[in-house]
Amino acid sequence: MTIPDKYSEKHRVTYYEADFTRRMTLAMMLDIVILASEDQSEKLNVGSDTVKKLNMGWVVIQYSIDITKMPRVNEIITLETESKYYNKFFAYREFWIRDNQGNVCVHMTSRWVVMDYETRKMTKIPHEIVEPYHAEKVVNIPKLPRPAKINETTEKVISQSYRVRYLDIDSNQHVNNAHYLDWMVDVLSPEFLNNYTAKHIDLRYENEVKYGHDVESKVSFENDDDNLISKHEIYSNGKRSASANITW
Amino acid sequence: MTIPDKYSEKHRVTYYEADFTRRMTLAMMLDIVILASEDQSEKLNVGSDTVKKLNMGWVVIQYSIDITKMPRVNEIITLETESKYYNKFFAYREFWIRDNQGNVCVHMTSRWVVMDYETRKMTKIPHEIVEPYHAEKVVNIPKLPRPAKINETTEKVISQSYRVRYLDIDSNQHVNNAHYLDWMVDVLSPEFLNNYTAKHIDLRYENEVKYGHDVESKVSFENDDDNLISKHEIYSNGKRSASANITW
Repeated sequence: MTIPDKYSEKHRVTYYEADFTRRMTLAMMLDIVILASEDQSEKLNVGSDTVKKLNMGWVVIQYSIDITKMPRVNEIITLETESKYYNKFFAYREFWIRDNQGNVCVHMTSRWVVMDYETRKMTKIPHEIVEPYHAEKVVNIPKLPRPAKINETTEKVISQSYRVRYLDIDSNQHVNNAHYLDWMVDVLSPEFLNNYTAKHIDLRYENEVKYGHDVESKVSFENDDDNLISKHEIYSNGKRSASANITW
Repeated sequence: MTIPDKYSEKHRVTYYEADFTRRMTLAMMLDIVILASEDQSEKLNVGSDTVKKLNMGWVVIQYSIDITKMPRVNEIITLETESKYYNKFFAYREFWIRDNQGNVCVHMTSRWVVMDYETRKMTKIPHEIVEPYHAEKVVNIPKLPRPAKINETTEKVISQSYRVRYLDIDSNQHVNNAHYLDWMVDVLSPEFLNNYTAKHIDLRYENEVKYGHDVESKVSFENDDDNLISKHEIYSNGKRSASANITW
């Protein structure tokens, strides 16, 4: 059995990473865990520049996220990550965010593919860019829950349009996909966000949002026993780009 | 002569703090220097919570910024700040961002007032919240250049409207005023931003932008000898909220 390389780093939550409730935003939570995984890749000499030389890039396609306690302004948290499994086409990575007592605030699992920049399609994962993580090679990668879709005919849908802004494009030259969560959250009212916090998120990326395209963020709600669930869909250029279910 | 307390801290520029040119965004530059000044205030026991107990808050009203070299992704930079002068109503604070060789990348001067949260007007600076910085008490605070205004009748004006989003409200419960620079920059084209970098910024805040209000960001250009200057104005709720001149 291989033992995956586990990587960790500290992070301080600042005032500009938090919303008006003084808790870190959901998008920032994604930004920092991705930072940890990029730092691990650099440390193992398989960073994005190395992968780019193969004309390829890692793309996250799904997250499943449990949030016990969202970190607050000025907390020093620890980001942990390990690449756990991979097969011919998919990789599976786990993340933890811990408070300064070591308690898990956030646990995330994620599925990844490698995209060929020429064809803009997923491609076989080259052995040399995955081996250094010491992930376990498996036949089947664990599946993550698919977010339930909005039913436009039976559900009340709230919708808001956005422009992809200059600042949505990050230094990786793509729309920072954490920003999809910003669009999803922004359609909710401040009153709602003051009274509810996200406990679980299933998030799935389907099509890339491009600079210059408009974005439509839709939400509907459903009650599942004791839980309130918001169902989110992001449309851009006529295609569904991402969908999520958030349990509050 | 008093010697102002100088405060410094390190900061790592991350991929999500940078734009597609891999340089830190202008708004992020403001976010991090304000973080340094808040940290200094906490260290001197006159942090925002202490000031809030007096029903007051510090508000920046003007910046003058020289940018020699905008820090890039993964640089470890040093943020330095000191509160240099104050009088009955105004305070003057300097900031430096240095690279890891100690070279100054950014130098900023700024003017501040204290706002009474009840009247929403500026008020006399209480001695106890300014003394710990060991700033020099002076009669006149150095003036900062006022940005030249757009002439709507003679200049070609480009304009774009924005909604204040949930995420523009930071943990201080106000529209993060670094985001005004995001609106100013976003009206410029990606081609422009790829080819030009900001060398100098004069920025003046006039009226607070509030959540729920629309924002209009306007820009016109002028040439001053060898320099290209963009003139920016932010309007919200029928009032000019901020203006800036950026030399490129």
